[in-house]
Amino acid sequence: MKVSIVGITGYSGLELVKILHQHPHVDIASIYAVKEVGGRLSDRYPYLLGVCDLTIESFDSQAIMAQSDLVIFATPSGVAKELAKDFVAADFPVLDISGDHRLSANTYAKWYKKEPASQDNLNKFTYSVAEWTDIKGKKFIANPGCYATATELALIPLIKAGVIDLDTIIVDAKSGLTGAGKALSESSHFVNVHDNYVTYKLNHHQHIPEIVEELKLFDSSLQHIQFSTSLLPVNRGIMATCYVTLKSVLSSDEIAKIYHACYADKPFVRLQQDLPELHNVIGSNFCDIGFAYNPVTNVLTVISVIDNLVKGAAGQAVQNLNLMMGWDETAGFLMTPSYL
Amino acid sequence: MKVSIVGITGYSGLELVKILHQHPHVDIASIYAVKEVGGRLSDRYPYLLGVCDLTIESFDSQAIMAQSDLVIFATPSGVAKELAKDFVAADFPVLDISGDHRLSANTYAKWYKKEPASQDNLNKFTYSVAEWTDIKGKKFIANPGCYATATELALIPLIKAGVIDLDTIIVDAKSGLTGAGKALSESSHFVNVHDNYVTYKLNHHQHIPEIVEELKLFDSSLQHIQFSTSLLPVNRGIMATCYVTLKSVLSSDEIAKIYHACYADKPFVRLQQDLPELHNVIGSNFCDIGFAYNPVTNVLTVISVIDNLVKGAAGQAVQNLNLMMGWDETAGFLMTPSYL
Amino acid sequence: MKVSIVGITGYSGLELVKILHQHPHVDIASIYAVKEVGGRLSDRYPYLLGVCDLTIESFDSQAIMAQSDLVIFATPSGVAKELAKDFVAADFPVLDISGDHRLSANTYAKWYKKEPASQDNLNKFTYSVAEWTDIKGKKFIANPGCYATATELALIPLIKAGVIDLDTIIVDAKSGLTGAGKALSESSHFVNVHDNYVTYKLNHHQHIPEIVEELKLFDSSLQHIQFSTSLLPVNRGIMATCYVTLKSVLSSDEIAKIYHACYADKPFVRLQQDLPELHNVIGSNFCDIGFAYNPVTNVLTVISVIDNLVKGAAGQAVQNLNLMMGWDETAGFLMTPSYL
Amino acid sequence: MKVSIVGITGYSGLELVKILHQHPHVDIASIYAVKEVGGRLSDRYPYLLGVCDLTIESFDSQAIMAQSDLVIFATPSGVAKELAKDFVAADFPVLDISGDHRLSANTYAKWYKKEPASQDNLNKFTYSVAEWTDIKGKKFIANPGCYATATELALIPLIKAGVIDLDTIIVDAKSGLTGAGKALSESSHFVNVHDNYVTYKLNHHQHIPEIVEELKLFDSSLQHIQFSTSLLPVNRGIMATCYVTLKSVLSSDEIAKIYHACYADKPFVRLQQDLPELHNVIGSNFCDIGFAYNPVTNVLTVISVIDNLVKGAAGQAVQNLNLMMGWDETAGFLMTPSYL
Repeated sequence: MKVSIVGITGYSGLELVKILHQHPHVDIASIYAVKEVGGRLSDRYPYLLGVCDLTIESFDSQAIMAQSDLVIFATPSGVAKELAKDFVAADFPVLDISGDHRLSANTYAKWYKKEPASQDNLNKFTYSVAEWTDIKGKKFIANPGCYATATELALIPLIKAGVIDLDTIIVDAKSGLTGAGKALSESSHFVNVHDNYVTYKLNHHQHIPEIVEELKLFDSSLQHIQFSTSLLPVNRGIMATCYVTLKSVLSSDEIAKIYHACYADKPFVRLQQDLPELHNVIGSNFCDIGFAYNPVTNVLTVISVIDNLVKGAAGQAVQNLNLMMGWDETAGFLMTPSYL
Repeated sequence: MKVSIVGITGYSGLELVKILHQHPHVDIASIYAVKEVGGRLSDRYPYLLGVCDLTIESFDSQAIMAQSDLVIFATPSGVAKELAKDFVAADFPVLDISGDHRLSANTYAKWYKKEPASQDNLNKFTYSVAEWTDIKGKKFIANPGCYATATELALIPLIKAGVIDLDTIIVDAKSGLTGAGKALSESSHFVNVHDNYVTYKLNHHQHIPEIVEELKLFDSSLQHIQFSTSLLPVNRGIMATCYVTLKSVLSSDEIAKIYHACYADKPFVRLQQDLPELHNVIGSNFCDIGFAYNPVTNVLTVISVIDNLVKGAAGQAVQNLNLMMGWDETAGFLMTPSYL
Repeated sequence: MKVSIVGITGYSGLELVKILHQHPHVDIASIYAVKEVGGRLSDRYPYLLGVCDLTIESFDSQAIMAQSDLVIFATPSGVAKELAKDFVAADFPVLDISGDHRLSANTYAKWYKKEPASQDNLNKFTYSVAEWTDIKGKKFIANPGCYATATELALIPLIKAGVIDLDTIIVDAKSGLTGAGKALSESSHFVNVHDNYVTYKLNHHQHIPEIVEELKLFDSSLQHIQFSTSLLPVNRGIMATCYVTLKSVLSSDEIAKIYHACYADKPFVRLQQDLPELHNVIGSNFCDIGFAYNPVTNVLTVISVIDNLVKGAAGQAVQNLNLMMGWDETAGFLMTPSYL
Repeated sequence: MKVSIVGITGYSGLELVKILHQHPHVDIASIYAVKEVGGRLSDRYPYLLGVCDLTIESFDSQAIMAQSDLVIFATPSGVAKELAKDFVAADFPVLDISGDHRLSANTYAKWYKKEPASQDNLNKFTYSVAEWTDIKGKKFIANPGCYATATELALIPLIKAGVIDLDTIIVDAKSGLTGAGKALSESSHFVNVHDNYVTYKLNHHQHIPEIVEELKLFDSSLQHIQFSTSLLPVNRGIMATCYVTLKSVLSSDEIAKIYHACYADKPFVRLQQDLPELHNVIGSNFCDIGFAYNPVTNVLTVISVIDNLVKGAAGQAVQNLNLMMGWDETAGFLMTPSYL
């Protein structure tokens, strides 16, 4: 199978190169960028010398449809909603890693402060947290956000089991800098990040509505979540620390059973005995989950960790691609985290 | 005034050297360690060459009382409760930075899993969050813990004002590695901390009881708090992210007024317009506080940041010393954070 | 082919698990440790859950020879020289990542300050920088040191070409902390490494003699090198900055030709146009080399970078294994650096 | 004494605020910026709330001369050469931290690729490494560069003593990111710096000519130095690792005597027994120097470390101010490094 990647020089695009380079069923046919057009990818990113020496081309939807079987958008928000139109019109498969096809038009406009894609086009896309969505044979996939992935995988089993008070959900999420993308800004300058810890977009993060939408699929009475995001001085990694109040006391075994029932046959979600840390998953497509219950406060703390560029972006995209095509879900994945 | 420091080679002891070196009213008379006895302090810590070349002596309570006017304990927990006995018996002033004299005997035994000081001695000590305790003329001071300082300064104004639902307090606190002390362990090895984020002692951190005790002074109906602690890959700094539910809606101005009423005349606590980050306070004795209210969830998020070695340990100790002696509260302090 | 690994819980042992997990011709038959014996590897290292759940066994040379076709030692120096004896006596293949079989007995004793292996056993081992040594069919391989690998790959082409003044070689080498191993010490405590840069073992590093020995193979008149090693506050990565004086002026093209002549057909060594940085190679088995000539001083600066745990240890070991067996040199390797 | 600062929002400008805030003889009269004009300094830099709440003004040379006794330029290169003209014309004291008044017009044009100040104006400025220049009563001071300061303090004593072969000097210098200034660029983006180590401007760094000029004052036969600069993933700190060949063998005591003869009475330069590390000096105006001689290669390695923002910029500027005015050289300085 041949795929084209649009937005190759972003962090997710570069991560796709790595995963697809070792994928048994996929070849990268052509690569596209908006600003960094021209020259070989490995001229601009010397770490890829001999790995991917394709030329970065200027976007051309007809050329892509002529050369490839599917296009992946790894672009910043606001780009795919325009560039994907030709493909949707031609019924050509699209996998969008950006946020452009995850929400309804109104919700997108409210949270992204941008003009949305048409509601018609949005209706054609399926939002797919890979462990919870059946997408075999689907043509248009909206890949979830990084914070959303970590949060949804942690909370869905509890909501599905009906064991928590839905009004009490508080998520304190933290991410490494790659989650904020490559744009140059004061907030991504090394000296402002290093030795620092900064909470941002409090109560306003654009992943909030997609989390709420997804969780509502499992209990429509859920109204909202309290959600904060902060920047860790690391390159990769997200931890979502979720605080929920139990409706009634549960033992650790009972809680573990709830998670095992959901994930025992899912190769990329692991329930850990100890609280998971970022090192567990960096460089891999795993989502690790752990928990601790406090009988004094009746609060259950659930912690999930992912690599935001893998399970939180390019990795889940390839996992979704595997599922669309009916391949082995783990095809193309190096299963061992880099650890250090 | 002359002071002696016991536990000079710990992070808090070394930080005391820095602050007292520039204090207009205090000289360090003698310094003591348990393991690293002998030789000049600057032989072991070359950054102090020419700054503090005193010899590290073996602990001797009689010598200290002969040479000094006050002794500061900057020792790990379990040490001061023994070594302070002679001074208490002699009614000689003691400032204990460790956790040994903060809790009742029973509570200490439960949370520290160690034999407590005698309840008689414990009764003589005053636990002093410097902004909230009148200690002028007192002789025995228990300096608060680092997490406790950040949390109490953030929450006391709200509890005192009676505006929050006391059952809903959730604190997600994070600290740099100096908070864990100098002991060598897997969890302090560079490669296990760098590029990582680890939650530890969840529901079991020994600062929980001192926070609950202090908060109860402002509303005795408070029963417990949900409190988590994690390690940031930085040397210094604590952020306490506090989530509380308001009893009734308050405007940002009304919330700001609650804090200003408490801290407007306190030189080391600053209410910031934006959410504070670690860089605000590192290298200084400031505690910076900021907040944001979410009308959707009715949750108020309050964030406080301190340098754990300064306001969270040695700095607050000197502030408490200033207050004991009736001096200017800011004597000895460099007021500008190092920022970067 | 089945291999056993001794020293599985060290950084090199754990890295071997990752590489061999994806190797098409190799299975890990059994794993051994000295201190951390018992339990599954993934109990102690949760990131390996589902990846390697083998039990950590106590060392037993007979069991290894019964189960496996080759043993890899990933032990600290001083261990393999003892434990390898049985295998050498039985003519059973050994790949030693440690420094125990790289030097003559006298040189080892002088630089490692330890009792050496017998000279008889040492004579059976071949020191193999994979790009420069023909080991097909050999049974006993000494894998080079990490600093040595980076330095030798940078300097051999120039020495072989006879273009530099051999008296002028100065190497300023820097490494991340994993190069120093897992031992707990003041120098590996997070707060002493973070925000710091420390030069250590100046003029005394134990990799100096193996570098000099290897370089002498290409010009026996070389007597010594000036070599310094420092710790970078990162987990992985070595940069060797080599300063040499040219015998006569060479153009950049002429210098590039010297390197291309040596490495054009070597899959893991890349000559880069720009000076290489650590990100080029982290997570991969590449050694990237770049250079700049200064006509004012007649000094050529050559910079080489490797991932110390991959090309500098476990990766080169697997590359050597591939070469011993006559397999494709790149078998088992993920070719794309992790980059970020 | 009243001073005005131009370029207040750069790292050196902000560091000046910190030092001058505690200076017994100096008040900051007014502050200026080019881009970030308007509003209080503490609105843009909340860590300064209550410390420096002055308004950032638009540059006005007449206003400065009316309000102040001296102006300090903490601007990027290319600014002070224009803005300082009025002050020079009026014989009003100027302290320039930037590189604009350090070199002759021709040399500046060659290395900075910018139009130089007039040679007439340049002739009025004195380049002052504080330990080596008599500037009492002088009006126009060019403060040295950060790399230059570390390198010159390390090498001058050896050159003055005539003990090294001047053709052999190789300096491998490393700096934290604040040395590169606040400008946003790919090379200052967090993810490109973190976990990386990058050599830049090899053979082209603009501090090379000022180092050569200064060293020539002590031996005019010196022609050049080999000088490299790299970026460490830290905020602050420079280490200059200097390799020199001795003319004849010297004992460690003899080398130490050479340094003591130069620096025994200099409060900010310390000869350390062990090789100095960044932690020795961060947050202070110290330059620490250490060395090791290798009899095998006859190479002496001298290592000097400074905080690039203090001794390498704002700190040395205040030290120079103290010397200009005939005050105690240490006035205004916190003498204890922050260490961690």
